[in-house]
Amino acid sequence: MKILFVLYEGMTALDAVGPYEVLARLPGAEVHFVGAARGPVGTDAGIRLVVDSTFDDHPTTDLVLVPGTAQLRLVTERSVLHEWLSGLQTTWTTSVCTGSLALGAAGLLDGRRATTHWAALDRLSRYGAVPVAERVVFDGNTATAAGVSAGIDFALTLAGRLAGDLVGQGIQLGIEYDPRPPYSIADAPAELVELVRSAAVVA
Amino acid sequence: MKILFVLYEGMTALDAVGPYEVLARLPGAEVHFVGAARGPVGTDAGIRLVVDSTFDDHPTTDLVLVPGTAQLRLVTERSVLHEWLSGLQTTWTTSVCTGSLALGAAGLLDGRRATTHWAALDRLSRYGAVPVAERVVFDGNTATAAGVSAGIDFALTLAGRLAGDLVGQGIQLGIEYDPRPPYSIADAPAELVELVRSAAVVA
Repeated sequence: MKILFVLYEGMTALDAVGPYEVLARLPGAEVHFVGAARGPVGTDAGIRLVVDSTFDDHPTTDLVLVPGTAQLRLVTERSVLHEWLSGLQTTWTTSVCTGSLALGAAGLLDGRRATTHWAALDRLSRYGAVPVAERVVFDGNTATAAGVSAGIDFALTLAGRLAGDLVGQGIQLGIEYDPRPPYSIADAPAELVELVRSAAVVA
Repeated sequence: MKILFVLYEGMTALDAVGPYEVLARLPGAEVHFVGAARGPVGTDAGIRLVVDSTFDDHPTTDLVLVPGTAQLRLVTERSVLHEWLSGLQTTWTTSVCTGSLALGAAGLLDGRRATTHWAALDRLSRYGAVPVAERVVFDGNTATAAGVSAGIDFALTLAGRLAGDLVGQGIQLGIEYDPRPPYSIADAPAELVELVRSAAVVA
């Protein structure tokens, strides 16, 4: 099973690395880190990840995942990425966070239910998608996850669908995913929500 | 605030990238990715991360984080890492997953409460540490997290201690950490637990 993780300058590292840590553990998984050019790309908070093959190397795949970024133009205006995505033969087209806006801009979400980071949810309708405020949204062969850390929930859910619940639960045990978040998102003060909303996505 | 993430060949990427995505968002955070030599390191399931400075570049820091690996010898036998850790002047010494065994081997956990991946918990006592089956364990200036994904809970907890709960909760909102794991770890069948135990850590 060939799995492509798109990497690009300015992306959010955890959007890709969370699902990678799950999906790379699927039996028979063959993972590639794909970008416009081979070599390191800088992510939005400093860590560098390495692109090991280019878009041209992969006309087909079983699964592609596009991570997000706070700088929306990096996913809404990347014509090379959009062209590749729109021509890619793939069984599963997936995204984490604002990566779904790249799927939308490539014309892959028209009429489909999809999600993205909560602070960018209203932007999905620009691409004909139906925005859904859920953590993981499946519609046909498309799967989109909400912001950043939601990629882990998405990937475990997908792992269960692809390889069975015992494999999904086994991977969850392997990465000891038994979350204990110290805060509640639902209880966040409205002022804090607005502060984070204005910082979380930049057009 | 200077924060060092140790990177090494064979590590588990999410152990570092989870906490990085949280701690790099702290006000005034200055993050570095430190290893034996500059350049890309391969992680245990394929993605490559880039070391941007060497141990010698950093005799002091505010915080150091050591990620883990399934191949325990990579953390228990890395004398260059142990020597550096034991001489490092730091306010916070931290680890995720089996990274705590490196802290132990460096003599930093003697008599301290600490945790690690559930499948390796019994190994902590070899270094004089008191193994604790909790997700995040603080003891003095040492903080250790359980397996892989526990680094996110650890980092958010630490962010709250360092910068206040409003900052911690704001970062949690930013990375939309509102987990919905598809499976329960507590309900895993005993046979699956034993299967994962034997694969999760290799001496």
